[in-house]
Amino acid sequence: MLLAKYFEKRRKAVNKALDKYLAPEDTKPTSLHKSMRHTIFAGGKRLRPLLFIATYEMLRGRKDLRAVRKILPVAAALEMVHSASLIHDDLPFIDNADQRRGEISNHKKFGNAIAILAGDALITKSFETILKISNKDKALKCLQLLIQACSTRGMLGGQVIEITAFQKKRVKLHMLRDIHLKKTGALLKASIQMASVLMESDKQIYNALGDFALNIGLAYQVIDDILDEVGADEILDKPSGEDLRNRKVTYPVLLGVEESKSQAIKLLKDAKNVIKYMPNNEVLIEFVDSIRDRIP
Amino acid sequence: MLLAKYFEKRRKAVNKALDKYLAPEDTKPTSLHKSMRHTIFAGGKRLRPLLFIATYEMLRGRKDLRAVRKILPVAAALEMVHSASLIHDDLPFIDNADQRRGEISNHKKFGNAIAILAGDALITKSFETILKISNKDKALKCLQLLIQACSTRGMLGGQVIEITAFQKKRVKLHMLRDIHLKKTGALLKASIQMASVLMESDKQIYNALGDFALNIGLAYQVIDDILDEVGADEILDKPSGEDLRNRKVTYPVLLGVEESKSQAIKLLKDAKNVIKYMPNNEVLIEFVDSIRDRIP
Repeated sequence: MLLAKYFEKRRKAVNKALDKYLAPEDTKPTSLHKSMRHTIFAGGKRLRPLLFIATYEMLRGRKDLRAVRKILPVAAALEMVHSASLIHDDLPFIDNADQRRGEISNHKKFGNAIAILAGDALITKSFETILKISNKDKALKCLQLLIQACSTRGMLGGQVIEITAFQKKRVKLHMLRDIHLKKTGALLKASIQMASVLMESDKQIYNALGDFALNIGLAYQVIDDILDEVGADEILDKPSGEDLRNRKVTYPVLLGVEESKSQAIKLLKDAKNVIKYMPNNEVLIEFVDSIRDRIP
Repeated sequence: MLLAKYFEKRRKAVNKALDKYLAPEDTKPTSLHKSMRHTIFAGGKRLRPLLFIATYEMLRGRKDLRAVRKILPVAAALEMVHSASLIHDDLPFIDNADQRRGEISNHKKFGNAIAILAGDALITKSFETILKISNKDKALKCLQLLIQACSTRGMLGGQVIEITAFQKKRVKLHMLRDIHLKKTGALLKASIQMASVLMESDKQIYNALGDFALNIGLAYQVIDDILDEVGADEILDKPSGEDLRNRKVTYPVLLGVEESKSQAIKLLKDAKNVIKYMPNNEVLIEFVDSIRDRIP
């Protein structure tokens, strides 16, 4: 990848910000702070922070790590709330996952009680962190986007629809699409639109970037499903086959692997089309290509 | 109580606000919205909203329900985040409570998965709701107080210290005091200081009200412990003896019932002393007396 160095530098900056904003492990109560840091620093691609930063720099018109440093509270907040959702979703009564990001899952290491409270604390810390943006008007707008993305209309709603649908065992494609759009799409959309808020871009760009995000969010999820179906531990963050063991309905289960691939490719093409005529789009275009490269 | 009507009117206003801000039960996903409403509307004294409102009206210098209506987003937000903590604390791996506020506890009715996500959704909704205050500067300050109260330095930290301490089974009085101050005191302090923020009272009043809140918070918790020890289902929100069955260390366990009563009375006296010379303090004074009246 041509921009490997670009992403690597920004990923490092995000990790440094996360380390700065989260209390050290030896802060009391230590089990809580250790648990919060465990999932945050157990790998993770930093998809949301990087998409946020890449969009911000596209709109800004140049790549400048010093400017990026000023918006790191938003990047860190996105990763915190995402990690909180992973911790809670991995719990025995929800997805029951023993591993996450290649390491032991939070509740397996710290117990259910601490894992639940660490998730709560990361949600709270996320909202606290995003308010560190110096322009208070913009901080507030970003916070409102974040809240909306997490709400019962977004991520949390999607998670419950998934649980309820899978209990009934009669999941149709439009339901699965709705689940993915809420569970994954909503926060990706907010991530990218926050860049638009910070750069004060006009409503048209703001809406277009929302569509771009939903397309790649859905594609990402479909590809995750495909990877899980065909089995590719080294690409996925969790052991493959897990969704099947949990009897989850996925895109490949409903459409077959080949048709799922076609749909993912189509979604990524649609995403590219949205940003095709935007100036300085080369990083985001490469980002989309890198998602496409995950298709086995 | 002389001011029964005063509190009744404000309690009704708070309940109406909660009903307005929470999505209706038939909003999809319905299980999530039903679960959120279950704990919110299963009784509850509305201690935090009422203390917030009473403090606001004291600082304002007159009782005026129309003025109170403008600050109801804060009152509702306080109750939402408190209810979220109840839902998560009642879970089997934390306090394992089958009942709450005289009704079946959230996870017993909706299952662990929905209860966890309903708690998350109430935290998120709480932060969303507090931002509805029209003055954005003040909304932001209130939100920051709320976040601080919920954080690992406040409520969530207190909950983890409690879990950890009780696992070790060697709880000393200063530890128990620290747990209560964080678990109950932090949010009460924020509730009362938010009134100070909205009324722009000076730093001295702000700090004094913080001390007032911590005193009554601790007293309230000690009295809860006493009631649980002597057994008085009709006064407590949960079946008495529960803390004992869970082998929790409480004030009466460490100090005996009589000494615990003395300490509670002393704390309430200290609280009264803080606000003794503040104008229009009659409602808050009666509030303190009503807490004292709970002592069996």
